[in-house]
Amino acid sequence: MAALIQRLDARDAGFRDALTRLLAFDASQDESIDRAAAGILADVRQRGDAALLEYTQRYDRVQATSIDALEIPRADWEAALAALPAHQRNALEAAADRVRSYHVHQRAESWSYTEADGTVLGQQITPLDRVGLYVPGGKAAYPSSVLMNAIPAKVAGVPEVIMVTPTPDGVRNPIVLAAAAIAGVDRAFAVGGAQAVGALAYGTATLPAVDKIVGPGNAYVAAAKRRVFGTVGIDMIAGPSEILIICDGKTPADWIAMDLFSQAEHDELAQAILLCPDAAYLDEVEAAIARLLPTMPRADIIRKSLADRGALILVASIDEACEIANHIAPEHLEISTEDAVTVAARIRHAGAIFLGRYSSESLGDYCAGPNHVLPTSRTARFSSPLGVYDFQKRSSLIQVSHAGAQTLGRIAADLAHGEGLQAHAASAEYRLDK
Amino acid sequence: MAALIQRLDARDAGFRDALTRLLAFDASQDESIDRAAAGILADVRQRGDAALLEYTQRYDRVQATSIDALEIPRADWEAALAALPAHQRNALEAAADRVRSYHVHQRAESWSYTEADGTVLGQQITPLDRVGLYVPGGKAAYPSSVLMNAIPAKVAGVPEVIMVTPTPDGVRNPIVLAAAAIAGVDRAFAVGGAQAVGALAYGTATLPAVDKIVGPGNAYVAAAKRRVFGTVGIDMIAGPSEILIICDGKTPADWIAMDLFSQAEHDELAQAILLCPDAAYLDEVEAAIARLLPTMPRADIIRKSLADRGALILVASIDEACEIANHIAPEHLEISTEDAVTVAARIRHAGAIFLGRYSSESLGDYCAGPNHVLPTSRTARFSSPLGVYDFQKRSSLIQVSHAGAQTLGRIAADLAHGEGLQAHAASAEYRLDK
Repeated sequence: MAALIQRLDARDAGFRDALTRLLAFDASQDESIDRAAAGILADVRQRGDAALLEYTQRYDRVQATSIDALEIPRADWEAALAALPAHQRNALEAAADRVRSYHVHQRAESWSYTEADGTVLGQQITPLDRVGLYVPGGKAAYPSSVLMNAIPAKVAGVPEVIMVTPTPDGVRNPIVLAAAAIAGVDRAFAVGGAQAVGALAYGTATLPAVDKIVGPGNAYVAAAKRRVFGTVGIDMIAGPSEILIICDGKTPADWIAMDLFSQAEHDELAQAILLCPDAAYLDEVEAAIARLLPTMPRADIIRKSLADRGALILVASIDEACEIANHIAPEHLEISTEDAVTVAARIRHAGAIFLGRYSSESLGDYCAGPNHVLPTSRTARFSSPLGVYDFQKRSSLIQVSHAGAQTLGRIAADLAHGEGLQAHAASAEYRLDK
Repeated sequence: MAALIQRLDARDAGFRDALTRLLAFDASQDESIDRAAAGILADVRQRGDAALLEYTQRYDRVQATSIDALEIPRADWEAALAALPAHQRNALEAAADRVRSYHVHQRAESWSYTEADGTVLGQQITPLDRVGLYVPGGKAAYPSSVLMNAIPAKVAGVPEVIMVTPTPDGVRNPIVLAAAAIAGVDRAFAVGGAQAVGALAYGTATLPAVDKIVGPGNAYVAAAKRRVFGTVGIDMIAGPSEILIICDGKTPADWIAMDLFSQAEHDELAQAILLCPDAAYLDEVEAAIARLLPTMPRADIIRKSLADRGALILVASIDEACEIANHIAPEHLEISTEDAVTVAARIRHAGAIFLGRYSSESLGDYCAGPNHVLPTSRTARFSSPLGVYDFQKRSSLIQVSHAGAQTLGRIAADLAHGEGLQAHAASAEYRLDK
């Protein structure tokens, strides 16, 4: 029988190679999916509503005869919200409030400063005009994802957030609609797939073009987003979800086992790894995994994820664990130790850092406040959680005074001549006093 | 004879269509270039230094026999700097100082806040570990580009900036090397093309892998950057440069003509457009263009750029000009009017805004302080100038207290059950007091 989860020892000679194999993930795109997405995009670009409607009828088996009929009226969302059980509505609203409160801290403000000669320099910060939010249909329809994507956009001041979500066989997800109402989404359309991405990117007669598209989707949606990037902005294309836990061996083993499960249950490709300097504790966690796994409704997914991509790794010290964590640059990092703040200060690369034994990743997924859209596949080395900053952009402000033009004009002209750009030089020199 | 520059009137019925045609730009990638870049990347990934050396020998006709020999030692940059004429060195250093002073304002700091129950939430901000800076060789080797790309990275705190620049036939550009010394670049290699991008993305035995690649390059470099995105971060792939000028008709016409030239001289595909409510002034500018054009060393490029992609547009008012500017979302916007501050407040989308008659774009290109790497092709609707923020990234911090876990755990468990993710729910519930 295959091992439940791989055991590694960082002191072994082959450890670095084993770690590289463990982290390896084939992110190559399927050429046939890419071509199919490209074809759909071109068709939607050219034929607009007609194409969008045809693809929606074909793929979602929806009987609408116009795109107008595919707009989900606000009254329907409000009804969905009103129909939610009170505990669920309260939980969604509490989560939304916390996500909003946190993200307000990310809002950047315009700034400027005035130099001695009266020249003013600065940066003007403005929200995007219109954002498209893709929400998957079917089983992967997560209302938490609506909150996490729409709220930062609204906090940034985006006037119009348009949600698209496929409704296979016309079946709408009421919790998703309720979440849209709570999150402040402005309009919603029951369309999905590459055709919805095309409609958002290029606009149709009914569905207005947006400036950026965010939100998760299947391989066709991801391929379409890659292709429209440049026409519109897009968020990161997420890989499989990951958790890395650094534990000193003093957190209840069941808690850590369940934290590993909570990542593994997402997807067979999800990755859950524990680093600990205490071999006996790793045994305890392995025993807890064996004991708890049969009780999980998603046991099959968890078992495959842990067997294929999970690991319990013995490290020499918490310091070494930090070094390995910086190499992995995990999407989620739990620091389940004493004095987690000191440990966190040694972490350079992670999407979200959960400090202390009470900070389970699932709290962050739903309601702690920070965003759950995080960089995967080592991209935390150079990218950040989704945030308000993804829905604001900056314009440089340059207001050169008459006096400033005398100083700057000479410098610019000198450098422009050096680069062989004489019109640049002349343009600066014209502003010099004769 | 073809018109020197197109004249349009915003009151004409066909204006919007004419504007759409004027702005249209085919950004489609050349498939053969893309395939060639992909082949080179795969080869460099597999064979490392050996492949990098072969491509460098072949494409740059460089006789080096090892990559070590292609590292440009710091002593060479220092010598290049020492050998610069004093006026040029002073201009470069003055520009670098101003760019540094401006970018310091963009540095984001970590933040956190503590809730009533002791839960701490925040965001930890860290620089990237290592950044690659591509600098084109030959005629397009712009020392100002070295300053604009390297300085924000160093202000962000990036410990290691590695410059790559091709040296066709072994010829090095001394001003580029001097700029690297001034900008604080850490290492430099005389390699270029898709092979340099591959080496930076994957690392070789000699050239270490970076976390992000920035800087302009030819079509092969752009294609390679697109392909390695995800493995490393990249900056925007720039389209042709653009200027849009809003003028009230009271700036000397020669100044505005030269400002249009300074954009047009970059490239035959560059775009220079003037919006003005005064038809007589547009005549004056057109006459100035005709008179000044023959005096320009790069007259042929300017003539083609203005004829193919330039326009003088009569608008009803400055308000209408602002509305058109927001539609165009230009890379550079000059507001050459009285009370330019009031006009700028109406602009939502532009890479850089130059306010007042003395703020020629060329001052911003070199030395005003703000970055000259700006969003082109209408992408200012959703993206920003290159800045310190491109070299910092964020990690969410979530430190839930024992008391906080009681409140948040119940909300998270409720939402997790609603999404069918029971391990998520259990992970939160384990932290609840029994």
